Amino acid sequence: MDFYDVVSTRRSVRAYQDRDIPEEVLSRILEAGRSAPSGCNLQNWMFVVVRDSARRAALAEASEQKWMRQAPVIVAVVGTSGRTMFCGVKADTVDCAIAIDHMTLAATAEGLGTCWIGHFDQKQCKQLLSVPQDAKIIEMFTLGYPRDLPSKRQPRKPLDEIVRWEHYS
Amino acid sequence: MDFYDVVSTRRSVRAYQDRDIPEEVLSRILEAGRSAPSGCNLQNWMFVVVRDSARRAALAEASEQKWMRQAPVIVAVVGTSGRTMFCGVKADTVDCAIAIDHMTLAATAEGLGTCWIGHFDQKQCKQLLSVPQDAKIIEMFTLGYPRDLPSKRQPRKPLDEIVRWEHYS
Repeated sequence: MDFYDVVSTRRSVRAYQDRDIPEEVLSRILEAGRSAPSGCNLQNWMFVVVRDSARRAALAEASEQKWMRQAPVIVAVVGTSGRTMFCGVKADTVDCAIAIDHMTLAATAEGLGTCWIGHFDQKQCKQLLSVPQDAKIIEMFTLGYPRDLPSKRQPRKPLDEIVRWEHYS
Repeated sequence: MDFYDVVSTRRSVRAYQDRDIPEEVLSRILEAGRSAPSGCNLQNWMFVVVRDSARRAALAEASEQKWMRQAPVIVAVVGTSGRTMFCGVKADTVDCAIAIDHMTLAATAEGLGTCWIGHFDQKQCKQLLSVPQDAKIIEMFTLGYPRDLPSKRQPRKPLDEIVRWEHYS
């Protein structure tokens, strides 16, 4: 699919068909995440792919979002370094967000729906997925075939409200 | 350009032609950033587009990366909320990384090169761009026509090293 079509087609999808994702489709999506750039190319990330229905239900509960259990796959993306960049920003957070953005766009290109999950109980979800103490789940995302036709796009701020030329004011 | 071609073509580009970026190309790239998803659709970001050569040189110096000044455009992406999500991760960092990933992939689709900049002096760069005290530059990226043919892709860890099925161990 054309890149700009992927960008304009992507929606947050919270209702899924009861339909498995073929292995080769899942592989291409994970491969897109693997191809993502990361600070100093360190790739300090782990993609935990959850398909077991009991564990998906538990993640949904720990996220206070029941609809999540419908998705045939939930991927938790874990940052494993804890490194802070010279600018004072967490490298893991940036790097894992890049990998998820690559994967969610790839999913759109495959006709799949996704939803980023940032509202979840970190401690509970780490326990459920046996994530080591010193690592952190940056975000999760759901993955599956959308049940409904694409919704209307959520409104965006106009470009001149979010772009400054040269500097503020 | 096909989505997967964009993903496989993208490189970190650190040498640029002395050639301006047409306004309509720059607009499409910024528009891709504007289309990016963000937590609760809050869009708490500001894209500061820097074209002035003296200011680019100053940003390059504050980033300890002289090559940056060659790029005809530097975009600083600023998080404006400071919000922390329920999972304990900074929302601004995730959201701005998503917007930059959208923009750097769009740039690749346009035949342009980019490089993510996470190594910079936050305080100096904020002063140079008059970024308000309570906001933060999450990352910057350079933008321009590459001087050289695409380099070989940096190696990536194999998929089975970065993917876990269901849980760790």
